Amino acid sequence: MRQVSFRDVGLKYTLSPYEEPVLHVKPGESLKIEVEDASSGQIRARGDRRDRSQIPFGNPVVGPIYIEDAEVGDSISVAVEEITPTIGQGATYFSEFNEGYLSSPPIFRLMKMRLPREPKICKIEDGKVHFSEEITIPYQPMVGTIGVAPHPEAESISSGVLPGRHGGNMDLPDIRPRSTVFLPVFHRGALLYLGDVHAAQGDGEISGTAIEMPAEVKVKVDLLKGEETVWPRIETEREVMFVATTSAGRSLEDAIRIAFLELVMWLEERYGLERFDGLMLCSQVGKIKIGNLWTAAAGIEKKYLEMLR
Amino acid sequence: MRQVSFRDVGLKYTLSPYEEPVLHVKPGESLKIEVEDASSGQIRARGDRRDRSQIPFGNPVVGPIYIEDAEVGDSISVAVEEITPTIGQGATYFSEFNEGYLSSPPIFRLMKMRLPREPKICKIEDGKVHFSEEITIPYQPMVGTIGVAPHPEAESISSGVLPGRHGGNMDLPDIRPRSTVFLPVFHRGALLYLGDVHAAQGDGEISGTAIEMPAEVKVKVDLLKGEETVWPRIETEREVMFVATTSAGRSLEDAIRIAFLELVMWLEERYGLERFDGLMLCSQVGKIKIGNLWTAAAGIEKKYLEMLR
Amino acid sequence: MRQVSFRDVGLKYTLSPYEEPVLHVKPGESLKIEVEDASSGQIRARGDRRDRSQIPFGNPVVGPIYIEDAEVGDSISVAVEEITPTIGQGATYFSEFNEGYLSSPPIFRLMKMRLPREPKICKIEDGKVHFSEEITIPYQPMVGTIGVAPHPEAESISSGVLPGRHGGNMDLPDIRPRSTVFLPVFHRGALLYLGDVHAAQGDGEISGTAIEMPAEVKVKVDLLKGEETVWPRIETEREVMFVATTSAGRSLEDAIRIAFLELVMWLEERYGLERFDGLMLCSQVGKIKIGNLWTAAAGIEKKYLEMLR
Amino acid sequence: MRQVSFRDVGLKYTLSPYEEPVLHVKPGESLKIEVEDASSGQIRARGDRRDRSQIPFGNPVVGPIYIEDAEVGDSISVAVEEITPTIGQGATYFSEFNEGYLSSPPIFRLMKMRLPREPKICKIEDGKVHFSEEITIPYQPMVGTIGVAPHPEAESISSGVLPGRHGGNMDLPDIRPRSTVFLPVFHRGALLYLGDVHAAQGDGEISGTAIEMPAEVKVKVDLLKGEETVWPRIETEREVMFVATTSAGRSLEDAIRIAFLELVMWLEERYGLERFDGLMLCSQVGKIKIGNLWTAAAGIEKKYLEMLR
Repeated sequence: MRQVSFRDVGLKYTLSPYEEPVLHVKPGESLKIEVEDASSGQIRARGDRRDRSQIPFGNPVVGPIYIEDAEVGDSISVAVEEITPTIGQGATYFSEFNEGYLSSPPIFRLMKMRLPREPKICKIEDGKVHFSEEITIPYQPMVGTIGVAPHPEAESISSGVLPGRHGGNMDLPDIRPRSTVFLPVFHRGALLYLGDVHAAQGDGEISGTAIEMPAEVKVKVDLLKGEETVWPRIETEREVMFVATTSAGRSLEDAIRIAFLELVMWLEERYGLERFDGLMLCSQVGKIKIGNLWTAAAGIEKKYLEMLR
Repeated sequence: MRQVSFRDVGLKYTLSPYEEPVLHVKPGESLKIEVEDASSGQIRARGDRRDRSQIPFGNPVVGPIYIEDAEVGDSISVAVEEITPTIGQGATYFSEFNEGYLSSPPIFRLMKMRLPREPKICKIEDGKVHFSEEITIPYQPMVGTIGVAPHPEAESISSGVLPGRHGGNMDLPDIRPRSTVFLPVFHRGALLYLGDVHAAQGDGEISGTAIEMPAEVKVKVDLLKGEETVWPRIETEREVMFVATTSAGRSLEDAIRIAFLELVMWLEERYGLERFDGLMLCSQVGKIKIGNLWTAAAGIEKKYLEMLR
Repeated sequence: MRQVSFRDVGLKYTLSPYEEPVLHVKPGESLKIEVEDASSGQIRARGDRRDRSQIPFGNPVVGPIYIEDAEVGDSISVAVEEITPTIGQGATYFSEFNEGYLSSPPIFRLMKMRLPREPKICKIEDGKVHFSEEITIPYQPMVGTIGVAPHPEAESISSGVLPGRHGGNMDLPDIRPRSTVFLPVFHRGALLYLGDVHAAQGDGEISGTAIEMPAEVKVKVDLLKGEETVWPRIETEREVMFVATTSAGRSLEDAIRIAFLELVMWLEERYGLERFDGLMLCSQVGKIKIGNLWTAAAGIEKKYLEMLR
Repeated sequence: MRQVSFRDVGLKYTLSPYEEPVLHVKPGESLKIEVEDASSGQIRARGDRRDRSQIPFGNPVVGPIYIEDAEVGDSISVAVEEITPTIGQGATYFSEFNEGYLSSPPIFRLMKMRLPREPKICKIEDGKVHFSEEITIPYQPMVGTIGVAPHPEAESISSGVLPGRHGGNMDLPDIRPRSTVFLPVFHRGALLYLGDVHAAQGDGEISGTAIEMPAEVKVKVDLLKGEETVWPRIETEREVMFVATTSAGRSLEDAIRIAFLELVMWLEERYGLERFDGLMLCSQVGKIKIGNLWTAAAGIEKKYLEMLR
């Protein structure tokens, strides 16, 4: 199995069509990607701080990975197979960014105050994350940032903010082993990026950081020739869901509405469920997942798809 | 066990301090409340339509129920024990209101178009809701609207919109049998209202209506003397969560932030978990539930409370 | 001319259908209303503080004023003719409420900090407001809160938050002498309330308080029989504008969209300008005014109405 | 005076650090920039339609223009001196994009309906824009899109959506002759882009298009060495204002709060007005301008700055 590591190809801070591919893979191929954590490795021990003079950005990714035969208008799928911590620990911490996360207006700056800066270093072992002496959390790893180079010929979007139709920093706990993410192709080769792995993360990632860890991620990449994707779709073992984001000035309510309406129109197209019946169905059995506060997913259990066949 | 039915005491369309109590109960007492459905019983069969010339409002409730000894600054709890459908069916449908739900701006009116008006009548039997010939949904009943008369001396808030600190039309699926809702007391006697029962409902209630059904709800009411509540709290078998709403012009993101910060400060007060540690913990294990699009709840599993004792 | 003063009829903190009218007036009649300031008179001198143990609410209003012959489905107009300060001064200050205004999530409470509490007492004389030794502001008085008892039979809404279709706490600087406000009638007699007068206020009222002053307001009330109003309309000497609010969980963007779409449909109905032409016109000459952050108005100059006759 | 025209250097659809400069200018230099309209010239006559198969993007810009000596951490200023229409007409129209502008959720797609597609072609002469036979609008030209290559080393942002700290598609009518825009420098040479000129535009640009025209824009560019800019600032003849945007999932309320807090902290730094006094002042005399619905500016009249000297 082919492997690519940030140690060899470096860290990127945007999802961009302007970078040289770090690897070419064939549809159907599995590969291992070794990624650094969201602090770019700056926070490994108590006393460590994010040093923005060295690394101004967060959330590094590895990529772009070129998927052969992928062309504009196709879709790719990325099945997450395994996530393995590489140093047996993760960290969670507050930085300036987290202050902006709790409050969009610069209240912290106005009031000349700060959140505490001491990180929590959390050992990961035996399927558990040691959050503190008292508190142990199940190890439920997930991929925070996954996406393709956005928009034909044009945009290069930060890996740290602004998820969008291209995926990006969605921080959805459902992107975990045994889930598959479907993404649009905006550029030849799709140009996949991945990073920002979490040992555990709650809905909303409300402090702005999860248990951020360096990790090795095993994925299987595939190509859906001629299949167009408007917004990312996730299939877990039990559910199918569509993602929409608040970037471009949408409210989270509107992101939820978008995700459900995409689902509803997909149910009509794929399963012949008339769109208003689908809307009524989603109102009874729909599930909403909130990633970070910029990202919503709306889905239903696959058992309802079975009923429609 | 005492009982109160809308058949005897009528339907109310606001949560109000201006109404005479329909029942007085003692702390610790269980009672049965029979409620009409959200259409005020206008939609029982195919061909039925909401007739707003007869009943301009939606979401009728039964109340107010006076809880003895409840005084301003106390809290009450309402444990939902059983929910039983009274006519063996529910209905879901689109009305003008639902159009406004999909789109706040009056796009439907601008474009002179409407959602289809034919309701779906769904039989409920053997623990199942018959949504259509192909689709069957588990019967998972819940209380859509529960709250107290808002704000001291003053406000009377519609039962159909505008959930708030007083509770109201939250449409949270977690308000179901074996859950307890904690509410602030703004008026002597608390003045509890309840209605809008659903046989099933998805997160977000995206079409604007669930499987709306008339039902009998068995609850046990209790009083928490001297305990102040800022926003409603829900305890399910496994989780504890705080509710916040977007009324008063808050974004859903801000409602989620509010709910988590209430939880964090409550964890500090009750369990001695320092607030920034609590915020970090919620970022790893927090759960977000979206009721209707005006209501968010943020919580954690109770097992983490056990670790803190 | 008839007069009504808060000294005689007291202060109200909701717009409510449950109160006895304090005055009956005929359509076409002018009257003087003496109102207290938004602090209920608690802040008159340096060192004064809002004491919420005495008066928990803000923004008192005088009313309800019963307009004869006004019936559900009519509209009323209130022309503001004169605003006169009654004690020659106003005040601006921060209270807990203002902290919530800068940040919906309870960041101030989380961080255990406060905005400074010392009020600024501002003399008003010779058409000027003395903000500080260096800074003088033109005296441009306006009515912050004006509205009717909301929704038929039902709601009673705080005068301090939650503007809506009934008007209420809109804080729009355009509600000033020589402007007329048009409001829907939801109850027999319309039940008008007014208060919260400002000697000056900027767009957005960003600190949460304007130059709050007790004042005498001369208005002329009229009745538009059979004319239905969906959202309040304001006519100034030069402009006509529609108001929409973010209460009920709408975003400010959606409030702006609503206000423009109401304007567009009104232009079609009144002036025969086809709605999509009207939408295109508003995109070129539309004006947006932001009252407090919950309220937007969208309008155009009346000269364009002249072109359409 | 040096000139650059889209006829020679082509159209760009992103603000990007990856493009070769089309011109190098010295600080203090004036230049003329000839730009195409927002439809890339596709809409010139009745019957014309946007053809997205040819040009998928909107809002082309000319650039990047390299400002000599500009380095990361500096600011640049761009004074708009003259705007001249090049073909004596402009156009306004609805496209798919405009449907998304009225409603973020895909209601138009769900309901299988469209806005009318016929453009309005508007002659510009004698200081007037001929909107229709009846309606004439003053010629008040402005620059819709102006900005620099965003974020160090990294992002390339669409010129058609997503204004941000780098400027971009702000559509603020105050960016007009005799106004100066101050922008941060994120890359050596600043890399200025400009386009999307309007013969007239209302607040909010509510239909999604203004009177879009090809034009020649005369600007004077200058460099503010060592002066850092967080969000763009605009100085008109009478006002100074800060811009903030809703991209990255902020609400418009939060954009307004950000713009005012930036202003307040700038007033403290530059004029010694203590920040909370500044906040109180803005609450009395602040002005809010809404560009497109993603962009807010908050400012005050310069006469208040005079009082502070």
